[in-house]
Amino acid sequence: MRILITGGGGFLGQKLASRLAGLGAVDNREISQIVLADVQEPAEVPSRVPVRAMVADISKPDDVARLFEQAPDLVFHLAAVVSGAAEADLDLGLRVNMAGTLNLLNAARQSAGSTGRAPMFIYASSVAVHGGEAPQTVVDGVELNPQSSYGTQKAIGELLLQDFSRRGLVDGRGLRLPTVTIRPGKANAAASSFMSSIFRDTLQGNAAVCPVSPDFPVWHTAPRTVVDNLIHATTIPADAFGPNRNLNLPGRTDTIGDMIAAMTRIAGPEAERRIRWQPDPAIEKIVMGWRGHFAPHKALSLGFSADRSFEDSVRFFLEDDIETPQGS
Amino acid sequence: MRILITGGGGFLGQKLASRLAGLGAVDNREISQIVLADVQEPAEVPSRVPVRAMVADISKPDDVARLFEQAPDLVFHLAAVVSGAAEADLDLGLRVNMAGTLNLLNAARQSAGSTGRAPMFIYASSVAVHGGEAPQTVVDGVELNPQSSYGTQKAIGELLLQDFSRRGLVDGRGLRLPTVTIRPGKANAAASSFMSSIFRDTLQGNAAVCPVSPDFPVWHTAPRTVVDNLIHATTIPADAFGPNRNLNLPGRTDTIGDMIAAMTRIAGPEAERRIRWQPDPAIEKIVMGWRGHFAPHKALSLGFSADRSFEDSVRFFLEDDIETPQGS
Repeated sequence: MRILITGGGGFLGQKLASRLAGLGAVDNREISQIVLADVQEPAEVPSRVPVRAMVADISKPDDVARLFEQAPDLVFHLAAVVSGAAEADLDLGLRVNMAGTLNLLNAARQSAGSTGRAPMFIYASSVAVHGGEAPQTVVDGVELNPQSSYGTQKAIGELLLQDFSRRGLVDGRGLRLPTVTIRPGKANAAASSFMSSIFRDTLQGNAAVCPVSPDFPVWHTAPRTVVDNLIHATTIPADAFGPNRNLNLPGRTDTIGDMIAAMTRIAGPEAERRIRWQPDPAIEKIVMGWRGHFAPHKALSLGFSADRSFEDSVRFFLEDDIETPQGS
Repeated sequence: MRILITGGGGFLGQKLASRLAGLGAVDNREISQIVLADVQEPAEVPSRVPVRAMVADISKPDDVARLFEQAPDLVFHLAAVVSGAAEADLDLGLRVNMAGTLNLLNAARQSAGSTGRAPMFIYASSVAVHGGEAPQTVVDGVELNPQSSYGTQKAIGELLLQDFSRRGLVDGRGLRLPTVTIRPGKANAAASSFMSSIFRDTLQGNAAVCPVSPDFPVWHTAPRTVVDNLIHATTIPADAFGPNRNLNLPGRTDTIGDMIAAMTRIAGPEAERRIRWQPDPAIEKIVMGWRGHFAPHKALSLGFSADRSFEDSVRFFLEDDIETPQGS
């Protein structure tokens, strides 16, 4: 089985590749190659399975064609212009998040045409597709009414994924990721970036800014859980999705204040003192347009995993990702 | 006020233009010009208001730029590759229904950039956006889960319209049209084409084929009602739409059998005898993916009109559209 991961240089692509390399197989099929694609050369992933890094801009059909030269059996499409950047530059977001996703689906379709097998296509959608007229607790089957360009473009990708799957051109599975925290690495242009930095950076002895109040509820999931769920998505029979290949992943709702308290319980009181509280209307406008409460029954019935506590998420971060332990 | 109508050569574009020309004003603003754009030269519309016909392919940005040279204040975007054709040719549908709509929105955005006024943009969406996991009676706020490429592309247009409106680039209003019957003119590649031909053609002495059974429920609206509602959409304050510029228009649910009985009550028993009943799995697959029952509360609260009876629709057809009366 040949695997292509777009956004392969990002924290999630790297974690997913490491996990897949460790497993050596997906759904009982041996992995023969993992291609990590990104706009900049992805970092190496230690692996017994051959891992190939490729530089590609998914908004360019020729770049995408190169990614499909070896006809991947399984695509994880994680690459995206993140929420803050897509809001700042509409054309960039449309080019990468909308046209880029269509380019990948079209390449998969062409690949299916030559190999006779529709590739499986796992698509990372987002909590950001929900907002506006959506109820305060998002149940399955709620109209996608995104209030950001990022959420809009992710929702368009979902519709394309569904239609290409319905037509048998790909075997798509679209997963709406809750906010992923605690992310390793550096802050980025995602409006949700602070939801990691107030833990990640303070646990490593650095300051962080929280632009929303402690009672702000976050629908979140840990990187380890997301990797579990991305891989679980490959094991579900296509028919089990019914007529809709896109779903809300499980996660947890906690307020920022509760999450900080959990961090304190696991790692002591030092980290919290490094948080500076400073409202930011631009960030508030985006993240308050999202929803903090979900009832993802379909995903749970399909065996996707939910996070059990934010304490777990803090532990996972300390086990998997910390570079400079607190107090060092 | 300058008005641009895409799909201006279609039956709806022609009827809308005639009505606007007759009114001479929209929302108390005098109409100075109507541009009718279509891929083939639109027919002339008798009018005191200057009406200009333009040939343009909306999938080509240069063609679209020409349509916006005179900075229309109000755009009715009716042009589309219809359902059967979009199902037969995925790329054509994506090019016209998805990229074409984006081209128009981008041209409107550029126009807003130079004039300082975001054009009003009325978008004809469709009942075809609903299906799949949607409940049997579609209420407002239901996830769009189209089961056709046409419905998918219309839903993508809605998302783009909403995002461009949220950003203040256009003042968008997206209306999901029920099946429009009785349409004048010729049969087309829409899967719903039979829903007009079994009335239109038989009332004019010709045969027609019905590919579904008499108990098939149709969510429908008359051309006259659609024109009423397209124009009503221009009179609603933007704020009244809230965070979602797209809505289900009112219509009526009747079974094919009830509609035929209504035709017989108005026009006598001859027409029904010209219907041949012949199942067509390809058409059934598309139209049975749609929904026949709706509860369009938001549209009703915003003052959009519902059809009162299918008898009315038959009368409207006889008054407005018949070319060869039955028995002549």
